[in-house]
Amino acid sequence: AEEVKTEVIKPHLGLNQEPIPLKVERVGENEVNVEMTAQITDIEIDKGEMYKAWTFNGEVPGPLVVVEEGDVINFTMKNMDPAIPHSMDFHAVRTSPSKNFTNVEPDETGTFTYPADNPGVFMYHCGTAPILSHIANGMHGVIIVKPKDGYPTDDQIDKEFVMIQNEWYNYNDLEDFTNGSPKHVVFSTKALKEDDRNTNGDTFTLKDEPLLAKEGDRVRIYINNVGPNEVSSFHVVGTMFDYVYEDGNPNNVLEGMQTIMLPASGGAVVEFEVVEEGSYPIVTHQFNHVQKGASAILKVTKD
Amino acid sequence: AEEVKTEVIKPHLGLNQEPIPLKVERVGENEVNVEMTAQITDIEIDKGEMYKAWTFNGEVPGPLVVVEEGDVINFTMKNMDPAIPHSMDFHAVRTSPSKNFTNVEPDETGTFTYPADNPGVFMYHCGTAPILSHIANGMHGVIIVKPKDGYPTDDQIDKEFVMIQNEWYNYNDLEDFTNGSPKHVVFSTKALKEDDRNTNGDTFTLKDEPLLAKEGDRVRIYINNVGPNEVSSFHVVGTMFDYVYEDGNPNNVLEGMQTIMLPASGGAVVEFEVVEEGSYPIVTHQFNHVQKGASAILKVTKD
Amino acid sequence: AEEVKTEVIKPHLGLNQEPIPLKVERVGENEVNVEMTAQITDIEIDKGEMYKAWTFNGEVPGPLVVVEEGDVINFTMKNMDPAIPHSMDFHAVRTSPSKNFTNVEPDETGTFTYPADNPGVFMYHCGTAPILSHIANGMHGVIIVKPKDGYPTDDQIDKEFVMIQNEWYNYNDLEDFTNGSPKHVVFSTKALKEDDRNTNGDTFTLKDEPLLAKEGDRVRIYINNVGPNEVSSFHVVGTMFDYVYEDGNPNNVLEGMQTIMLPASGGAVVEFEVVEEGSYPIVTHQFNHVQKGASAILKVTKD
Ligand SMILES: [Cu+2]
Ligand SMILES: [Cu+2]
Ligand SMILES: [Cu+2]
Ligand SMILES: [Cu+2]
Ligand SMILES: [Cu+2]
Ligand SMILES: [Cu+2]
Ligand code: NA
Ligand code: NA
Ligand code: NA
Ligand code: NA
Ligand code: NA
Ligand code: NA
Ligand SMILES: [Zn+2]
Ligand SMILES: [Zn+2]
Ligand SMILES: [Zn+2]
Ligand SMILES: [Zn+2]
Ligand SMILES: [Zn+2]
Ligand SMILES: [Zn+2]
Ligand SMILES: [Zn+2]
Ligand SMILES: [Zn+2]
Ligand SMILES: [Zn+2]
Repeated sequence: AEEVKTEVIKPHLGLNQEPIPLKVERVGENEVNVEMTAQITDIEIDKGEMYKAWTFNGEVPGPLVVVEEGDVINFTMKNMDPAIPHSMDFHAVRTSPSKNFTNVEPDETGTFTYPADNPGVFMYHCGTAPILSHIANGMHGVIIVKPKDGYPTDDQIDKEFVMIQNEWYNYNDLEDFTNGSPKHVVFSTKALKEDDRNTNGDTFTLKDEPLLAKEGDRVRIYINNVGPNEVSSFHVVGTMFDYVYEDGNPNNVLEGMQTIMLPASGGAVVEFEVVEEGSYPIVTHQFNHVQKGASAILKVTKD
Repeated sequence: AEEVKTEVIKPHLGLNQEPIPLKVERVGENEVNVEMTAQITDIEIDKGEMYKAWTFNGEVPGPLVVVEEGDVINFTMKNMDPAIPHSMDFHAVRTSPSKNFTNVEPDETGTFTYPADNPGVFMYHCGTAPILSHIANGMHGVIIVKPKDGYPTDDQIDKEFVMIQNEWYNYNDLEDFTNGSPKHVVFSTKALKEDDRNTNGDTFTLKDEPLLAKEGDRVRIYINNVGPNEVSSFHVVGTMFDYVYEDGNPNNVLEGMQTIMLPASGGAVVEFEVVEEGSYPIVTHQFNHVQKGASAILKVTKD
Repeated sequence: AEEVKTEVIKPHLGLNQEPIPLKVERVGENEVNVEMTAQITDIEIDKGEMYKAWTFNGEVPGPLVVVEEGDVINFTMKNMDPAIPHSMDFHAVRTSPSKNFTNVEPDETGTFTYPADNPGVFMYHCGTAPILSHIANGMHGVIIVKPKDGYPTDDQIDKEFVMIQNEWYNYNDLEDFTNGSPKHVVFSTKALKEDDRNTNGDTFTLKDEPLLAKEGDRVRIYINNVGPNEVSSFHVVGTMFDYVYEDGNPNNVLEGMQTIMLPASGGAVVEFEVVEEGSYPIVTHQFNHVQKGASAILKVTKD
């Protein structure tokens, strides 16, 4: 774990706000309240290497949000950052950015309402200028909009995971964010159901404590590459994707893919079988990024 | 606006040829004459930063060419550059490159004939060696071949734009073109109809003077990423693409996409609604490129 | 041809193992034996510039493997490298990586069995850690799994080629592999039938001795971008792809594409006509890579 050059902004010095659970509450058949924080929280991005991240709810990527196709989202952001404004841009919704993706000032709370009427695996992120700094410092995550009629392959699936690819650069260094190369490229997993795991984007957790499946399982991964800068060549070693739904839309089907191209902020649902016990590495096949951290292990056991 | 290192080639010193309008003339039911120039023209790529560009018709990207599927194109290039040959490679046509994408010498005129029998949003560019220098110095643009039977969504569209993404590097620096990173990544828009705007690829015009639409409009953008080096993750903030036609072919449909991956020289037709008034940023979601200029504003007004 | 910084590992000094032909033997209706070597062989990557490559069978990319959809592959690797272990990861198969993509020690032979039940144009590569070093030093190639029912366009095809895009970096320099830019980006072709050519990935061979077709031919290229790091914007000058099968699966069809985006390790089958005699350059339209070598010529003659 290398030395980190920190340029923590003054009011963040010594600040390490405890993670706060996401609140999602269904308040109508097609209406959900989602409540998140913007906060400053230390994240271990590489063994022994801490990053005083700008976060949603103290996680990087932020917590997974799941809603249903057709839901109206009442979104509340509590900005606990004492120093700078933050905001929320959900790729899942249609709304006026200048009205509903606007800044919430330090120590204030903002509420915004918009519909999520298209299914998919969408990126969300802080949209406060300079956006690159807010994303690269940690303010990104995924919102899944579940398709009303499901995916055609729903009843084949034994095991589901959410995974996110993101990059880390020199600490809060807009020059490096803009002109540098990523220092680390990492995967994380986020909880879909109560007992699922919820990890930060780091170089080691999903290697030391793999994702788990059983021999013969048909596995689905909801994946998004939140960037901020790089594209992803998403691949699982030892298998291939029987079905890919690009950006998670049930109508965008690809079959028998070895690798799926994800633009920056692109998502997909990928499905595959793991036919034998063993360790299946999950990577971006841009192998310089694997060298910088971008692999996870899916461990398949007999039973 | 930073200092610019210029290595203008000698015969271009002090040369600034006035933009000359594109000539397109229909001469038969399925035959068009297209006449363009190669010329040296100063382009303001960033506020106060001029680039003595190698251009088609004095614009960078060059003027939009629109033909119909099935047209034969009689293409004439007048090379007004006093120093070096130029040429034209239309991705829209099928022809022998060594016969019809060949050099036109300084102060000469060349004519070439070829069919455009596939619909789409195609790149064109100078193909003179070293091609990278000719593209990076400004010799690129878009030719749209309109599908004979239209797009299935044609009658839903209220507003259409053409947009192009391109990069700028250190002036006429093949070493930087080859091994450097883009200094600016920019968008431009080109006129589809008489009163449409026609801008150069710069960091500011489409921010200072946004594209315009009305609340509730269904908007179509014909987009191409002419590079020369980078891929694009094309995205519009506050909405999503209901329909994407990859490379602009009506048969290549994707639905409900947050972001569309464009290879270098890749095109698409994307369609989306803007449901409320406000400002909708258009970006490549590779945010280091946004930091270098790659955003435009679509301003949506009530009426 | 520039000076090369070599850091040949000690036991490879002076070693230059003669290429050894691939062995493929059908031993049952749905069973093939495939035998390959891992070996150290000098490859001329640029004119006069030798690279003491880590190879499969003394070629870079390794020899083309062709099997039928539904085949079981009995794969044998003879590791002739005196110094380090190597292994084989076929993207075409479903198997446990920790059981069947495992290391074969120096001077040992390993045998592995797995099914290839999905059609496509798949990458294979050494999977020994650090994988980036093994791929970047030369241990990559393509395995085609022929679709049981063919491609819908099979009977239109006059001429077929296999092409591979790969990158070269500073010799055996994991730091450069990880953080550098490619020094050369190159294409090669591999033999599909007995009299086809078989070239290494270099900057010159497919320019000096073009691929050959006849006027009016409908050409198919099986392409894979083996990386290790870069994506590809695959394009043929003077024509367009009437049909693209993404990753080579007959069900993933795109039509009328000017350029096809290939992720790292992504494949495709592309088909196009060459209507007139002449020279048709084949490129990745990321033109900095063309400048580094990534073009080939398809020469079309009258008869
Ligand atoms: Cu923020
Ligand atoms: Cu692989
Ligand atoms: Cu030119
Ligand atoms: Cu966004
Ligand atoms: Cu190896
Ligand atoms: Cu081109
Ligand atoms: Na695999
Ligand atoms: Na695609
Ligand atoms: Na780059
Ligand atoms: Na959006
Ligand atoms: Na790169
Ligand atoms: Na072409
Ligand atoms: Zn580190
Ligand atoms: Zn923020
Ligand atoms: Zn199966
Ligand atoms: Zn500037
Ligand atoms: Zn030129
Ligand atoms: Zn609508
Ligand atoms: Zn060289
Ligand atoms: Zn190896
Ligand atoms: Zn034809």
